[in-house]
Amino acid sequence: VRFIESLRKFGYKGQIYPLHPSGGEVYGMKIYANVKDVPGPMDYVISAVSARYTPQLVADCAVKGVKAVHLFTSGYSEIEDEIGGKLEAEVLKIARKGGVRLIGPNCMGIYCPSSGMTFAQDFNDQHGFPKRPGPLGLISQSGGNSIYAVRAGSGRGVFFSKVISYGNAADLNETDFLEYMADDPDTRIIGMYIEGVKNGRRFMQALKRAAAIKPVIINKAGATDGGARACATHTSAVAGSAAIWQGLLKQAGAIQVDSMDELIDMSVTLLRLPLPAGKRAVVIGTGGGLGVESADQIISAGLKLPLLTPSIRKEICSIYGTEAGSMYRNPVDAPPFGGIENTVKAVSVAAASDKVDLLILHFAFDIWAMVSRSEPRYFFTEMIEGIQSKVKKPMAMVLHYTTELAAKQSADELQKKWVDMGLPVYHSIARAASAINRYIHWSRHFKGKKP
Amino acid sequence: VRFIESLRKFGYKGQIYPLHPSGGEVYGMKIYANVKDVPGPMDYVISAVSARYTPQLVADCAVKGVKAVHLFTSGYSEIEDEIGGKLEAEVLKIARKGGVRLIGPNCMGIYCPSSGMTFAQDFNDQHGFPKRPGPLGLISQSGGNSIYAVRAGSGRGVFFSKVISYGNAADLNETDFLEYMADDPDTRIIGMYIEGVKNGRRFMQALKRAAAIKPVIINKAGATDGGARACATHTSAVAGSAAIWQGLLKQAGAIQVDSMDELIDMSVTLLRLPLPAGKRAVVIGTGGGLGVESADQIISAGLKLPLLTPSIRKEICSIYGTEAGSMYRNPVDAPPFGGIENTVKAVSVAAASDKVDLLILHFAFDIWAMVSRSEPRYFFTEMIEGIQSKVKKPMAMVLHYTTELAAKQSADELQKKWVDMGLPVYHSIARAASAINRYIHWSRHFKGKKP
Repeated sequence: VRFIESLRKFGYKGQIYPLHPSGGEVYGMKIYANVKDVPGPMDYVISAVSARYTPQLVADCAVKGVKAVHLFTSGYSEIEDEIGGKLEAEVLKIARKGGVRLIGPNCMGIYCPSSGMTFAQDFNDQHGFPKRPGPLGLISQSGGNSIYAVRAGSGRGVFFSKVISYGNAADLNETDFLEYMADDPDTRIIGMYIEGVKNGRRFMQALKRAAAIKPVIINKAGATDGGARACATHTSAVAGSAAIWQGLLKQAGAIQVDSMDELIDMSVTLLRLPLPAGKRAVVIGTGGGLGVESADQIISAGLKLPLLTPSIRKEICSIYGTEAGSMYRNPVDAPPFGGIENTVKAVSVAAASDKVDLLILHFAFDIWAMVSRSEPRYFFTEMIEGIQSKVKKPMAMVLHYTTELAAKQSADELQKKWVDMGLPVYHSIARAASAINRYIHWSRHFKGKKP
Repeated sequence: VRFIESLRKFGYKGQIYPLHPSGGEVYGMKIYANVKDVPGPMDYVISAVSARYTPQLVADCAVKGVKAVHLFTSGYSEIEDEIGGKLEAEVLKIARKGGVRLIGPNCMGIYCPSSGMTFAQDFNDQHGFPKRPGPLGLISQSGGNSIYAVRAGSGRGVFFSKVISYGNAADLNETDFLEYMADDPDTRIIGMYIEGVKNGRRFMQALKRAAAIKPVIINKAGATDGGARACATHTSAVAGSAAIWQGLLKQAGAIQVDSMDELIDMSVTLLRLPLPAGKRAVVIGTGGGLGVESADQIISAGLKLPLLTPSIRKEICSIYGTEAGSMYRNPVDAPPFGGIENTVKAVSVAAASDKVDLLILHFAFDIWAMVSRSEPRYFFTEMIEGIQSKVKKPMAMVLHYTTELAAKQSADELQKKWVDMGLPVYHSIARAASAINRYIHWSRHFKGKKP
């Protein structure tokens, strides 16, 4: 019922047939007791019944001519009990024999905004997935991680062509989905969360081919023994050694990341940051201690922090007035309320340096005491519009230090405005620097079409 | 005027004399043109005048018998220009000669709730610092970092005895403040953000002595060349090599952290987590992929993740019903809405294992679609009360995946409730694990009184 409710709210246009042994009605639709009773043709069945009923269900689907069954249900090879593994093998055998493809079991299935498919439960019309489609195709062995990626990505202007949560991969697996995404014209970037692969050689071949055409970002879980064991209990995957994975992914031309947040950071960068001519960043924002910390983080990530020339520093000093602050070498500690005009000028001067390839502007809300008083949403939007019109180099925006709810609220509003202006928005300087550095390295070897 | 406004709102009980050449009145108080015109005795002067007027001000303060001057003003040795360094030396000479101690220049000064001193600007009565005093004494070379620490800490139940933002440390420096905090009975934990030290040998002696009495948590900035250069332009500090620092801090018995967030994590742990008997953690929460990621993070942090025995797993299975989920080996993937009673039971069973030293319970808001519908604040408070009454082992709470504003709001409300219940609350599994591991290591060598 939850899936049906979600699909209806999301505006799925195809015919939906509810199935349940009880019969009756739901949302004014007749409930059929059995697949074979459904009057019209059926392409896709979502199964939320107990694992033990699925062999019969899949057999019935084969008779009915159903093309694919999504097994939301868990209780197969991922459980300890022998029965689970046997059941999975049995269902697979029936599906293969009957020409039915399986997604799952133990997964959320498919979100595809262009065809109105979703798996997000939309309570209070607040938590549904966006209807707007986009260029990121996500393949995720974990349902939770796929939900998180859609929520975290869409707020930052990253939308999805298709999201496939595939769980145990009894039939269709990561390699099948990767091959599909590589050829899918709606997918310009491929993202993957994988715990293990079924056939390493086939996967690496598919990955090499895909990564030559489009950027492929991979979050491979299970880097430690504990993680590898957790993979086995989660989706029965065999994780493999972290070091081997790292080497193979690099060789195949994929971009490796360590979390779903980094996967989204990377997508934001690929889609929204013009490629910088080099690694030399200038960092501008408020907070001296934060500037020091950010300098460490930027160098550690692999980017460079060129010293601004004395003449540029002098010019910035004269814009702000000598006593308004003093950290102008890079990072630049900009007075928080130096005025829109002054800030636009100072940032343009720093960006104009021929030693600088990109700008990182950061906004630390919890450090300012004045979040709600000065209405930063309007102040900063105007300021950023000014900077955007004057600065022609790539520009990354960081909204961070949002511990207080009011700070988070202001940051969210600014994020929305800046995302609409086409800017890449990050939530920490370290993560921005790390994604940008990976982007620069990846672009040196990638021969395909940029997303 | 901002400082005066802050002090008045914060309830400072001493006599305040506004000083400005203009004369006149502010908040009904007479403004004096010169220190020497003030009728009563004065202990402490906060200076926000231009650097060039400070030699005269300090000279006047000496005549008046002022004990300490806080130079909020910047424009001294941290700027490039020779004048800054000369001015700082001149002011210092005058202060030394006149028996006046200096805090700063280029800093926020002192926050001391028990005496009503503050430097937080309190606009709309929203952004002031807490009036409640606590056990953490913070010494910070950066004003912004000290503001952030107070905001981030107080939300998680960490309150402050004194916070000293000391900037360039022309006169009183990190070692003076450390010696003071070591002897201060109100301070049970010392936290430090330092960019460099004036006298390495004296500092290490003071640190050794302090760290033998109380836990000392140190965030030493400037680990890379870029960071070290940024230290110089921020507070004119010489950062020193990161590797040398690491060795020295360890030898002195201090707890080294890499950010202000980690400093607060560590304080939360020291104050709110009973010392676990060992490193074996059981991790319980919703999200299979997240469980895998958390397993990697926990192992990487140095903690252990023991396999739960088959009999315990069977018991948990029977509580939830075999098909409700399947990841029970540890991490445990708990169904988000398995009911209060079932969850309390399952968690108690896992915690009771003699292989387990501590519990990490995590709550990933963005993964659930039901944040606002199910009123998690009430649901989870009751559940945690149940768990707290049954589980006698140390328990760390993680509130994470709060990208959506509604998720953050629910998380904040839960945090408030759980903090009131005395629990340690963290914002990521990785950071919780890292702080707990440091805590266990530190406690093995610490012979003083636990905070």
